[in-house]
Amino acid sequence: MAHIDLNSDLGESLGQWRMGDDDTMLSIVTSANVACGFHAGDPAGILRTLKAAADNGVAIGAHVAYPDLVGFGRRAMDIASEDLRADVIYQIGALQGLARAAGTRVSYVKPHGALYNTIARDERQARAVIEAMLAVDPSLVLMTLAGTPLTGWAREAGLNTAAEAFADRAYESDGSLVSRREPDAMLHDAEVVAERMLRLVREGVVESREGIDITVAADSICVHGDSPDAVALAQAVRSRLVAAGIELRAFVDGIA
Amino acid sequence: MAHIDLNSDLGESLGQWRMGDDDTMLSIVTSANVACGFHAGDPAGILRTLKAAADNGVAIGAHVAYPDLVGFGRRAMDIASEDLRADVIYQIGALQGLARAAGTRVSYVKPHGALYNTIARDERQARAVIEAMLAVDPSLVLMTLAGTPLTGWAREAGLNTAAEAFADRAYESDGSLVSRREPDAMLHDAEVVAERMLRLVREGVVESREGIDITVAADSICVHGDSPDAVALAQAVRSRLVAAGIELRAFVDGIA
Amino acid sequence: MAHIDLNSDLGESLGQWRMGDDDTMLSIVTSANVACGFHAGDPAGILRTLKAAADNGVAIGAHVAYPDLVGFGRRAMDIASEDLRADVIYQIGALQGLARAAGTRVSYVKPHGALYNTIARDERQARAVIEAMLAVDPSLVLMTLAGTPLTGWAREAGLNTAAEAFADRAYESDGSLVSRREPDAMLHDAEVVAERMLRLVREGVVESREGIDITVAADSICVHGDSPDAVALAQAVRSRLVAAGIELRAFVDGIA
Amino acid sequence: MAHIDLNSDLGESLGQWRMGDDDTMLSIVTSANVACGFHAGDPAGILRTLKAAADNGVAIGAHVAYPDLVGFGRRAMDIASEDLRADVIYQIGALQGLARAAGTRVSYVKPHGALYNTIARDERQARAVIEAMLAVDPSLVLMTLAGTPLTGWAREAGLNTAAEAFADRAYESDGSLVSRREPDAMLHDAEVVAERMLRLVREGVVESREGIDITVAADSICVHGDSPDAVALAQAVRSRLVAAGIELRAFVDGIA
Repeated sequence: MAHIDLNSDLGESLGQWRMGDDDTMLSIVTSANVACGFHAGDPAGILRTLKAAADNGVAIGAHVAYPDLVGFGRRAMDIASEDLRADVIYQIGALQGLARAAGTRVSYVKPHGALYNTIARDERQARAVIEAMLAVDPSLVLMTLAGTPLTGWAREAGLNTAAEAFADRAYESDGSLVSRREPDAMLHDAEVVAERMLRLVREGVVESREGIDITVAADSICVHGDSPDAVALAQAVRSRLVAAGIELRAFVDGIA
Repeated sequence: MAHIDLNSDLGESLGQWRMGDDDTMLSIVTSANVACGFHAGDPAGILRTLKAAADNGVAIGAHVAYPDLVGFGRRAMDIASEDLRADVIYQIGALQGLARAAGTRVSYVKPHGALYNTIARDERQARAVIEAMLAVDPSLVLMTLAGTPLTGWAREAGLNTAAEAFADRAYESDGSLVSRREPDAMLHDAEVVAERMLRLVREGVVESREGIDITVAADSICVHGDSPDAVALAQAVRSRLVAAGIELRAFVDGIA
Repeated sequence: MAHIDLNSDLGESLGQWRMGDDDTMLSIVTSANVACGFHAGDPAGILRTLKAAADNGVAIGAHVAYPDLVGFGRRAMDIASEDLRADVIYQIGALQGLARAAGTRVSYVKPHGALYNTIARDERQARAVIEAMLAVDPSLVLMTLAGTPLTGWAREAGLNTAAEAFADRAYESDGSLVSRREPDAMLHDAEVVAERMLRLVREGVVESREGIDITVAADSICVHGDSPDAVALAQAVRSRLVAAGIELRAFVDGIA
Repeated sequence: MAHIDLNSDLGESLGQWRMGDDDTMLSIVTSANVACGFHAGDPAGILRTLKAAADNGVAIGAHVAYPDLVGFGRRAMDIASEDLRADVIYQIGALQGLARAAGTRVSYVKPHGALYNTIARDERQARAVIEAMLAVDPSLVLMTLAGTPLTGWAREAGLNTAAEAFADRAYESDGSLVSRREPDAMLHDAEVVAERMLRLVREGVVESREGIDITVAADSICVHGDSPDAVALAQAVRSRLVAAGIELRAFVDGIA
């Protein structure tokens, strides 16, 4: 039976500041990228999200980031390799501790925001993240954007990787994402998106914005939950896949 | 053969700011209370200290604290139990991750500064710290000030505890420490201190400032390394104990 | 003509995290207590709120707080006087700079959260805040809870003070607020609250929860904007006062 | 009579962490670039430095930086213009508040670390800093590295600028600094450095590392105080200049 994973960024509240609807999203997704306190998330809030994820049988990834609360980890930063390596170990370890307290465990790592974009192509910073994962737990899987150099560097170093596609993003014909600076970068029609993702799972293709079918090998589909519209879109993707007989399960279940 | 543990607070530098002489202290002590980033310590600096501790065979404790860099964790804080519990789990987990990367592990927890003083007697906050340790790793030992209610609460909850004495502090006749606000709270004469600590190990007593011998059951002696004088005093204690045939070894070696 | 000031806490978003509806509240209130970055508020967000306040002719107060983002400044903290004094000067100065850039100025200081509660009765910390205000600008007015010792300390030291009442809080017969821990501490019925505030302005009394009329001398009424219900209540208070011919104007307009 | 300004980075301690010897440096320099809390400096420590600067008649500059304590402001950061502009206003305002409390005032702005290097050539970030200065106080002088595009952008926008030379750095023949990555970037011989600076003041030239005399128009000479050797070098520069009859005075005294 065909299967796929749905992942989303969760645990991004901070003290009195709420972000996203973690409880609803945890009934939709099969993998949760949980903030580790550097771009978002305070320990008590992270722990609540981890407990809810454990209750829902959702797999846990460490959503590691640059140290940047005010910029929400979206500012590229020229950080020394030694610092980045230790920052990533620290964040993974902190999340592992909270996960143990919540009765679950950290299975994978998904870099966040500017770190995600930077290490897709910057080998120096990529190697710092890879070394951090190897140092703290070599069985951790690195979630990457399909088709970027990072995947190769991680595999050479001995890490398992998983590739993700983005439900709400348009693709260029070369397989890259349409830049957010362009007006048609984001897809908003839930039915269109759901149908695209069904085709991705069944046929391994998405249509680019120029109308060309392109191959995208994805182990997981990223959906968002930071607005009511985003939650509705995520729910639509899930419903369409389930209705078509696709099994939704955490990608790490196929690896471990 | 008689034996004792020497512990000290390490890993307290922060980025460009240096504090203490960790390399020298790691040749003196048998247990290192390592900062976890809340009152001091950045991940890269903590990792360097952990590697040096591993090279020296020194046991590692998580020196958990209130979130307070500018106040160095010395400001008492009326923090909610849920927040404190999660903050302590987060710090222990982060240090465990860095310790794995350094080839060592976290064996015990020593609360820092205002948290140390508060939970010695404040049951609500004490229980939050105890629950945090049980949730992340029930085999962790809690290091406490000898003779405080905290010890009882921790043992009832199922934790192992270790009691510490302070090499450079004067004692009241009731076994408590002379308040730092009093002029004769601190002892500065290295030879006097070394002789006191030898007597503590051999006879289980220290002389109070009123000249009365009091019983102090200590599993560990705390020495400091934040000034050249402090390092010299720590070295004097070690040398005197070794010369007298006392074995220096981590207190956790006797528990595990 | 009778007049009164309405004040509210604003500028409390942080980067990507939104809090409150500042634009709507700035059409309701006449004084804005603006966060200074220690419990809430990033500089760019604070500046946007200050510009909107300037556009609406709303007076600006520095909503100074303990350094505590995760706890939102609601954790009592045993901070040294020298540190607190400098922290308050720093926050006032930062807000003054942003206010100049927004074409307005800081007229008063309202301590936030745990600092507000602590200095109402703790003379040591109160004096640190008073000295900070005198050092940076002695013409700043201190907004206090009516009837607390702080008012006397501030006036003796040469500061002008303004007393505030709380629209959505029940009062004890001795004039103090009913503790938030009690079930009937908060008032939710907008019409009842609006009528209470009209009576406060006209007669200088509010009815305590035991049904006794008590005298409350208030220069300003605090309303909240952190939920749609809170905004509606604030709007109801304003509308009732305006309908009754009460002039709404910043309390500082009567002082300067 | 020939004259020159000596400037140095001060106020860079943080809570319990000491950095530099501000008291000694304030007897050497005529202008102090004082940290504003984003890369270094807590309010109480900054205030102490400002009071000592006021006592010594030393001019004050705001040493504004990226928000980055652990990286000491040395990490280049891709920050949005709106955020950078507000961050700079916030820092200048905070320092102005503390300066008033210390009986002095902020006369100029010297960006720190990665921000200094970035805005020397990055027009977008440079304009954000320039706009910030214009918004908070257009009479503030911007201190820049001699010969960089920033100087032109600032002057076009209506700011006064001052150019600085570096006492302890080698120069390329094109007037740029030898990169710190090269072995001979730093000059260590106090007598050589003192003689170079005397020639700079008298003749407006320094010798490049290839032995060519190059023109450097400097309003100020930057000296460092972060090590005993650095302090000795700064003292040597001052003594040599004074012995040669050069007047040491703050560059802002010639502008205001």
